[in-house]
Amino acid sequence: MRFFSDNAAPAHPKVIEAIAASNRLDTAYDGDEWSARLDGAFSDLFGTEVRAFWVTTGTAANCLALAALCPPYRAILCHRDAHIEVDEAGAPGFFTGGAKLVLLEGEGAKLTPDALDDACDAIRNDVHQVQPAAISITNATEYGLVYRVDEVAAVGDVARRRGLALHMDGARLANAIAFTGDSLADMTWRSGVDALSFGFVKNGGLNAEALILFRTELADQIAVRRKRAGHLLSKGRYLAAQLLAMLEGDLWLDNARAANAAAQTLAKAAPDRLVYPVQANELFLRVSAGEAQRLREMGFDFYDWGPGQIRLVTSWDQQSAAIEGLAGVIAAL
Amino acid sequence: MRFFSDNAAPAHPKVIEAIAASNRLDTAYDGDEWSARLDGAFSDLFGTEVRAFWVTTGTAANCLALAALCPPYRAILCHRDAHIEVDEAGAPGFFTGGAKLVLLEGEGAKLTPDALDDACDAIRNDVHQVQPAAISITNATEYGLVYRVDEVAAVGDVARRRGLALHMDGARLANAIAFTGDSLADMTWRSGVDALSFGFVKNGGLNAEALILFRTELADQIAVRRKRAGHLLSKGRYLAAQLLAMLEGDLWLDNARAANAAAQTLAKAAPDRLVYPVQANELFLRVSAGEAQRLREMGFDFYDWGPGQIRLVTSWDQQSAAIEGLAGVIAAL
Amino acid sequence: MRFFSDNAAPAHPKVIEAIAASNRLDTAYDGDEWSARLDGAFSDLFGTEVRAFWVTTGTAANCLALAALCPPYRAILCHRDAHIEVDEAGAPGFFTGGAKLVLLEGEGAKLTPDALDDACDAIRNDVHQVQPAAISITNATEYGLVYRVDEVAAVGDVARRRGLALHMDGARLANAIAFTGDSLADMTWRSGVDALSFGFVKNGGLNAEALILFRTELADQIAVRRKRAGHLLSKGRYLAAQLLAMLEGDLWLDNARAANAAAQTLAKAAPDRLVYPVQANELFLRVSAGEAQRLREMGFDFYDWGPGQIRLVTSWDQQSAAIEGLAGVIAAL
Amino acid sequence: MRFFSDNAAPAHPKVIEAIAASNRLDTAYDGDEWSARLDGAFSDLFGTEVRAFWVTTGTAANCLALAALCPPYRAILCHRDAHIEVDEAGAPGFFTGGAKLVLLEGEGAKLTPDALDDACDAIRNDVHQVQPAAISITNATEYGLVYRVDEVAAVGDVARRRGLALHMDGARLANAIAFTGDSLADMTWRSGVDALSFGFVKNGGLNAEALILFRTELADQIAVRRKRAGHLLSKGRYLAAQLLAMLEGDLWLDNARAANAAAQTLAKAAPDRLVYPVQANELFLRVSAGEAQRLREMGFDFYDWGPGQIRLVTSWDQQSAAIEGLAGVIAAL
Repeated sequence: MRFFSDNAAPAHPKVIEAIAASNRLDTAYDGDEWSARLDGAFSDLFGTEVRAFWVTTGTAANCLALAALCPPYRAILCHRDAHIEVDEAGAPGFFTGGAKLVLLEGEGAKLTPDALDDACDAIRNDVHQVQPAAISITNATEYGLVYRVDEVAAVGDVARRRGLALHMDGARLANAIAFTGDSLADMTWRSGVDALSFGFVKNGGLNAEALILFRTELADQIAVRRKRAGHLLSKGRYLAAQLLAMLEGDLWLDNARAANAAAQTLAKAAPDRLVYPVQANELFLRVSAGEAQRLREMGFDFYDWGPGQIRLVTSWDQQSAAIEGLAGVIAAL
Repeated sequence: MRFFSDNAAPAHPKVIEAIAASNRLDTAYDGDEWSARLDGAFSDLFGTEVRAFWVTTGTAANCLALAALCPPYRAILCHRDAHIEVDEAGAPGFFTGGAKLVLLEGEGAKLTPDALDDACDAIRNDVHQVQPAAISITNATEYGLVYRVDEVAAVGDVARRRGLALHMDGARLANAIAFTGDSLADMTWRSGVDALSFGFVKNGGLNAEALILFRTELADQIAVRRKRAGHLLSKGRYLAAQLLAMLEGDLWLDNARAANAAAQTLAKAAPDRLVYPVQANELFLRVSAGEAQRLREMGFDFYDWGPGQIRLVTSWDQQSAAIEGLAGVIAAL
Repeated sequence: MRFFSDNAAPAHPKVIEAIAASNRLDTAYDGDEWSARLDGAFSDLFGTEVRAFWVTTGTAANCLALAALCPPYRAILCHRDAHIEVDEAGAPGFFTGGAKLVLLEGEGAKLTPDALDDACDAIRNDVHQVQPAAISITNATEYGLVYRVDEVAAVGDVARRRGLALHMDGARLANAIAFTGDSLADMTWRSGVDALSFGFVKNGGLNAEALILFRTELADQIAVRRKRAGHLLSKGRYLAAQLLAMLEGDLWLDNARAANAAAQTLAKAAPDRLVYPVQANELFLRVSAGEAQRLREMGFDFYDWGPGQIRLVTSWDQQSAAIEGLAGVIAAL
Repeated sequence: MRFFSDNAAPAHPKVIEAIAASNRLDTAYDGDEWSARLDGAFSDLFGTEVRAFWVTTGTAANCLALAALCPPYRAILCHRDAHIEVDEAGAPGFFTGGAKLVLLEGEGAKLTPDALDDACDAIRNDVHQVQPAAISITNATEYGLVYRVDEVAAVGDVARRRGLALHMDGARLANAIAFTGDSLADMTWRSGVDALSFGFVKNGGLNAEALILFRTELADQIAVRRKRAGHLLSKGRYLAAQLLAMLEGDLWLDNARAANAAAQTLAKAAPDRLVYPVQANELFLRVSAGEAQRLREMGFDFYDWGPGQIRLVTSWDQQSAAIEGLAGVIAAL
C-alpha cells in the first residue's frame, strides 16, 4: 500500500463522472458553461466576491499568483521548507522574472510574525538589497501542521502593516479546514490573504486546481499570465467540471476528513514516534532503518525523510481495514 | 452547429474510457505505468528513438521546445501568422526569456526556403542584431494548408545549412498526414525536424498534447523546464493514458480523416468561394456580411476572418448529415 | 575621415575637464554632489519637475524606461527600423522580461497616428493576443528625420486616448531640437512623452546618457531596475559631471548645431542624391558602388546602407574644411 | 575622512590621463585600438590565453559571467554574505533569467569544500529540486579575508568533480594578490576558475571593470549578452584605456598594496578589536556605540556593521598621516 503521496491516489468517481458528463461540444478555452460558473461557485463558498481560475498544477497556481503579487525586482518571504522553494524547480523565479525568495526559519514550516518582522528589519531599505513585496505561507504546511485562523490573521497583520501581499499555498487547505473546523472565509480573506492556491488534486481531483483571487482587480492580469504560461487549456470545461464536482455537496471537505481520519488512526498507533503533532494528512515518524525496511517488506510504501525519519501521507480513498492494518503494524514495531 | 474551432468538439469516447481505466493508484508525476510507455509508443510510431512528453497545451509544447532550441539572446524565424506569434499571448518570449520572433511572409502561412534565406541574409552578423537560432513551421498551417514532405525537407535543408534548429508546430499534424498520406517519419525527423508539438486535443483528445524530441539529448532539459513551468502534473497517468488511447489503432489518424473529409464536403459545395485550397480541416470562404448573417441565423457558428471572409473548422465528430446540410446551404447562398 | 558614426567622435574637451574636476573623494554610487544636482538641472532645462538618472548607454536608458512602462505580457509599438528593434540585440526583451515589439511601417522611420491606430485596431482584445502598453518613437529618427512638436503631440494623443505610455528615444534629440528650434518642454512632456532617453554620447559626451522621467512616480522603480541591471556605477560622480558639463551654457545644443550644420553643407552639395531630406546630422545618399569606392579611396569612411545607398553621419567636432572638402567631392562625383 | 568604502576614493591620476589621451576619433563600441589590445594585455598578465571584456560595474561582470555559466533552471552556490546575494539588487536573477542562488555558511564569507559538498548532497537529483550548475566565490571576501591558492584550488576540485563551473568575484582580487604574493595565474585558472570579475574601480579605476574568461569559448555569448544588457558602451575606448593604464607598470598591484598597508597600520592599532584577521583592505572592529560616535565626531566616516561592530575600508590613495592619525585614535579609544 502506498503512503508516499496523496498524489498517488486515484480521482474520486464523481470527478470522473463530471468529466464524462461535460464531454460535449462547448466553447473553447474558458468560455464554456462550466468555467462560467466558477466565479459564482467559489464566491458562494468563500462568502465574498472572488475570481476563480482553473489551472492544472499547484505550481502554476502558486507562481501565477506570486508573479501578480511581486515584481521581478522584489522578494517573497517564505519558509525555508516551503514547496515553492524546495519542490517547484525554481518556478517562482521563472514566473516572476527573477524575484527572490527570502527563506525564513520556523517550527514545522510555519512562519511567525516575529520571524517575518525580523526578516524585514534585516533588509536595508536601499536599492542594493532586494525589498520584500509578498509573503507566502502554506496551510497545511509541508510538515502537516495547520495554521489556525488567528495565526494566519497574525501573518496578515504583518503583511498589512508592512505593505506586503499575502499568498497562501493551500495544496492541502482542505485538510487544514477539516482539522480546525474553521470557515474558509476566516482562514483566508478575513485573515488578510490576497490570493490562494486551492488544491484539489491531492484531495481526490484529477488534474484541476483552483487559483482564487480575493483581490479581484488582479484577475485580468492573471488571465493573461495563465495563457502566456501555456496554462489556458483549449478544452477548459473538463477542468471546471472537476472543480464543480469537488464543491458539490462539500466533497472536498469529506475527502479531506477521510484522509485526516486515516492519519489520526496511524498517529494514535505510535504517539511516541511522531516528529510533529498530526493535524492534517501527513505523518512524520521516527523509525529506524531496520524498522523502515520491515515496513517496506510488508508492502507499505513511503518516503524516507532524512536519517531515522519517514513520511506517510494518507489519502481520501484509504480503506479503514488497510489503515488499521498499518496502525497495528506500526504499533507493534 | 459550431464550426468555429475544433477545440469546441468533445473528446472521443475512447479517450474518456482511457481516463476512467487509468483511475487507480499509481506513482505521482510521470512515474506511472502509462507515462512510462510513452517513449516506446511514440518511438514505434515515428520509427526512430524519440523522447515523448505529455503537456496540456500546444502553447506549452511549442514554447518548451523553443526554449530548449533557442537561447534568450537569439531569434526564431516563423511566419507572421504563426500561432506562436499571433495567438499565444507572447508565450515564446516568456518561456525563452525574451528571444525574438522574426516574422516572415509566405502564402497561406507557409515558409519557403527563399524567404528563410532572405531573412537570414538580412541580419548583420554582429552583436547588435539578434542572430537566428531556430525555425518554427506549422503543419498544417494556420490557413489549413499542408507542407508536403519535400517542402519540410527543403526547410530542413536551410536549417542544417545555416546551423538552425527546426521546430514543427503540429497542432493539426494529424490532419496534414491524413491529407498527404505520408509517413510521420518522412514528415518530421527524416526531413530535419528536431522537435515536434504533436497535437491531440483538437483531434479528439481531452487535455493531453505530446512534445516529441527527435534530438533526445534535449530530454533532460525539457523535463526540468516542464516542471519549472508548472506543467508537470501530479497525476500524469491521466494524460499519458489519453495519448496512448489516441495512438491505439491509429485513432488519431481516423479522427483526422473524418475531420478532413467533412472539410472536403464543404469545400466542394463552394469551390469559387475558397480563399485557400482545402487540405486539412479548415475552410476560409469569401462570404458577404449578409450571407454570413444568414448562415448564423440558420444556426451555424464560425469566426469572421477579416472583411468578407469567414473561417470554418471541422472536427472529428461531425455527422455527415450536418455537414451535408451546411454544404447545401453554402451552395445555395 | 570618418563619417560612419557620431559615436566615433571624441568627447568634448569640457567633458574631459569635468571628469578631471570631479576626481575627488565623494560618496559612492549616486550619493555624490554631482549626481545630487541632476534632478534640479534637468528640471530647470525641461521647465517641469523631472527625475534624471545617468546611465552609460542609450540601450540602458531605452530599456529601463520600457521595462517600467510595459509589463512582460504586453507590447510596445515602434517602427520596424527603430533602434530598439534593429540594433539593441534584443535588449527590450531582456529588460522587460519578454514583452513584444509590434513593428509598424512609416516613412523615414516615423510613426503616424494612423499607423498607430491601425496597429491597435488589428489586435483582438482577448488573452490570446498581446495587448499594447506603450509606444516608442525616436527623435530624430534612425533616418535623420525630425518629428516636429505637433507630430509628437499627435502621437501623444493616440497614447492618451488608448491608455498607452509614450517613450521617446532621444539619442539624437539634441539634433532634432537644433533643427526645429522648439523647446525641450514642447517636444517632450507637453506633447505627452512619459519617459525620455536623452542622448549625450553621440553629441560630444564620453559615456553618460540621461534617462528623464516626466512621470516622476516611476523613479523608485527605475532606481532599483538600474541597480539590478548592473547600471548603478560605483563612482557615479564621473557620469553626473559629464551631464552637467553638457548642460552648462547649452553645450549640448551648440554641439548639435555644429553637427547639423555640417550635414546641411553636405546635403547642399548633392540635393539630387538625398534619399531623405536632411534635418539632423545623418545623410542617406544614392551613390553607385563605384562612386562609393572612389569616396573610400579618398579616405572617407561611411556605412553602405543597402544597394546603391550610403549613410554619412556628421559630428559635433567636424572641421569646416573637411566638410567643405567632402561636399566638393560629392558634388563632383 | 571617509573609510566607508573604497568606492569613495578618486581615480588614480594615470587613469584620468589615459582617458584624456584616448580622447580622439576611433571606431565605436569595442572596435577601437585600446579595446583591441585587451585580450593580449590580460593574456600576458594571466599567462594564458584569455578573453577580456570591459564593463562598467562589478555587478555586470559578475552577472554576465553567471548567466553564461548557469542556465535559468539551475543554481549557483555562493556564500550567504556574497555580494551577488546581498548587494546586487537581485541582479543574478535578472541576468540568468531566474536561476537560484543556494546560500552556504562559512567563516568570514569563505566557502569550504565540505560546505559545498554538503550543499550538493542535500539536493535530490530530480526535476523538482533545482540542480547546481556553478559556484561563485569572492576573493578577497566581503569580510576582507583572502582565499589562498590552495583554498581556491580545493574549491576548484569540488567544481570539477561535480561538473560545476567556477566563478570568482574579484572586486578586490588585487588586494588578495597583494596580500598573498601569489601569481594571478595560480589564484585563478590554474586553480580551476572559469570566469573572473576583475575589479579595478575600487582600486583606483574610474568606471572600468574587467570580465576575464578563461573558458574562451564563452566569449561570443558574453559579447552578445553584454550588448543585450546595455553594457556595450558606444565609446568603449575610454574604458579600455583605463584598464590598460591600470595594468601599465602593475599600477593595479601598487594601488592594492597601498590600501592593504593602510589597513595593516590600522589593524595593528587595535588587535583586540578585530572581528576578522585583516588581510586585504577591510577592517571589522568591535566598537561600542559611544566609541563609534566619538570617531564620527572626530571626522571619521564608516559603516556600522551590526550592533557593536563597524567596518572600515582603506583605499589606494590614503595618506600615511591620516592613517596614522586614525590608528592613534583607535588605539586610544
